[in-house]
Amino acid sequence: MTAKVIFRQLFEKESSTFSYLLGCKRTRKAILIDPVDITAARDAEIIRDLNLNLAYAINTHVHADHITGTHNLRAHFPEVKTGLGSGAKIAKSDEKFPHLHILTVGDISLEVRHTPGHTNGCVTYVEHKMGLVFTGDAVLIRGCGRTDFQEGSAATLYKSVMEQIWTLPDHFMIYPAHDYKGRTVSSVDEEKRLNPRLTKKKDEFIQIMNNLNLPYPKKIDLALPWNINCGAEPLEK
Amino acid sequence: MTAKVIFRQLFEKESSTFSYLLGCKRTRKAILIDPVDITAARDAEIIRDLNLNLAYAINTHVHADHITGTHNLRAHFPEVKTGLGSGAKIAKSDEKFPHLHILTVGDISLEVRHTPGHTNGCVTYVEHKMGLVFTGDAVLIRGCGRTDFQEGSAATLYKSVMEQIWTLPDHFMIYPAHDYKGRTVSSVDEEKRLNPRLTKKKDEFIQIMNNLNLPYPKKIDLALPWNINCGAEPLEK
Repeated sequence: MTAKVIFRQLFEKESSTFSYLLGCKRTRKAILIDPVDITAARDAEIIRDLNLNLAYAINTHVHADHITGTHNLRAHFPEVKTGLGSGAKIAKSDEKFPHLHILTVGDISLEVRHTPGHTNGCVTYVEHKMGLVFTGDAVLIRGCGRTDFQEGSAATLYKSVMEQIWTLPDHFMIYPAHDYKGRTVSSVDEEKRLNPRLTKKKDEFIQIMNNLNLPYPKKIDLALPWNINCGAEPLEK
Repeated sequence: MTAKVIFRQLFEKESSTFSYLLGCKRTRKAILIDPVDITAARDAEIIRDLNLNLAYAINTHVHADHITGTHNLRAHFPEVKTGLGSGAKIAKSDEKFPHLHILTVGDISLEVRHTPGHTNGCVTYVEHKMGLVFTGDAVLIRGCGRTDFQEGSAATLYKSVMEQIWTLPDHFMIYPAHDYKGRTVSSVDEEKRLNPRLTKKKDEFIQIMNNLNLPYPKKIDLALPWNINCGAEPLEK
């Protein structure tokens, strides 16, 4: 990518989750987006191999399909700060980013765009200089996250995508939180042309999303209490 | 990546195989490296979505763990040519590339470097302008392909890597044919520093490779006859 920033895409097979490492070559400080608990040791090894130190472990939202790696990463990088969008009200986090906040780590600048709809607290992180868009579950490759739990809303997701993601330059690369078919990246241009849901008009999109009839997520009852607690074991109530 | 070339990494979960798409923006012609049979339809869809036409489907070697997608891709792109290193003597292929051959498709130039050792016909494809190295199974991330079948040789692999890959610029990115831990890319610098096998002296490397005691590859008896036949069903003898 650019000369100033190291960029790595990482994959966790069980939940088909992508994590993204951005490292500043000058300061050797790094950000990890959407880490997973069971790959935290692998991620820590890669971060150290690249002579980086983890400054931030941040999530695009409170995940329902896996436990975040933020807590486990703290054992490797005691100084790491966790971050989440400020719309994720009940979740614990060292920092809660407001809409349009700029998270700066060395030569890396991530703009936080609130993109609720899949959950009420979803954000998209945008690296404008490199043209990278980390959409979480708001926009997936040829798809989007479901909107039937965690205060999700199809109408809200539609508005978020149209206003916060489709307005980015066409050549910006979309890096989602998941792909189940072995694809790794898309672009704003591609999804605006080819996304089978988000190319529809708003009413049709809402109808599609409200009639997906998806099964109850397998891991949600396990994952949410942990993820609300930064990926650490929840305290009993 | 660069403005002139579209680059996509693709993943096949069952065999943990990466395929790599390079597309010339000007001529809309593309090369696909190491396609897999069961993801050929997905690959064809992506190629068409990007308004590309497949000129070459090429392999780094005759794979033992999956069937190549070259034959299946022909149904989608009748004009596609298959390619393989000229060291793969018994395998069928439209073109067999000699050592240091340059495969040019529009603004894409791949240098073919013969890197035998995992098999006798292995090649590494190098895109010098973009700094991309497609190593197949010669160099994996923190590993390398086994050398105990298909006329493999640890001594030959060591020589190939030292002379053909370690001599590339440190910042060149290594894209292997597989990763089993969810990593997607490494660099010449990283592997020269951190590869647990290939940082060893030659004699120690050979001893490690000759004592791996790996099980017989599950799919080799199925995959080889097909792959020798370009991924098509072998003719009975």
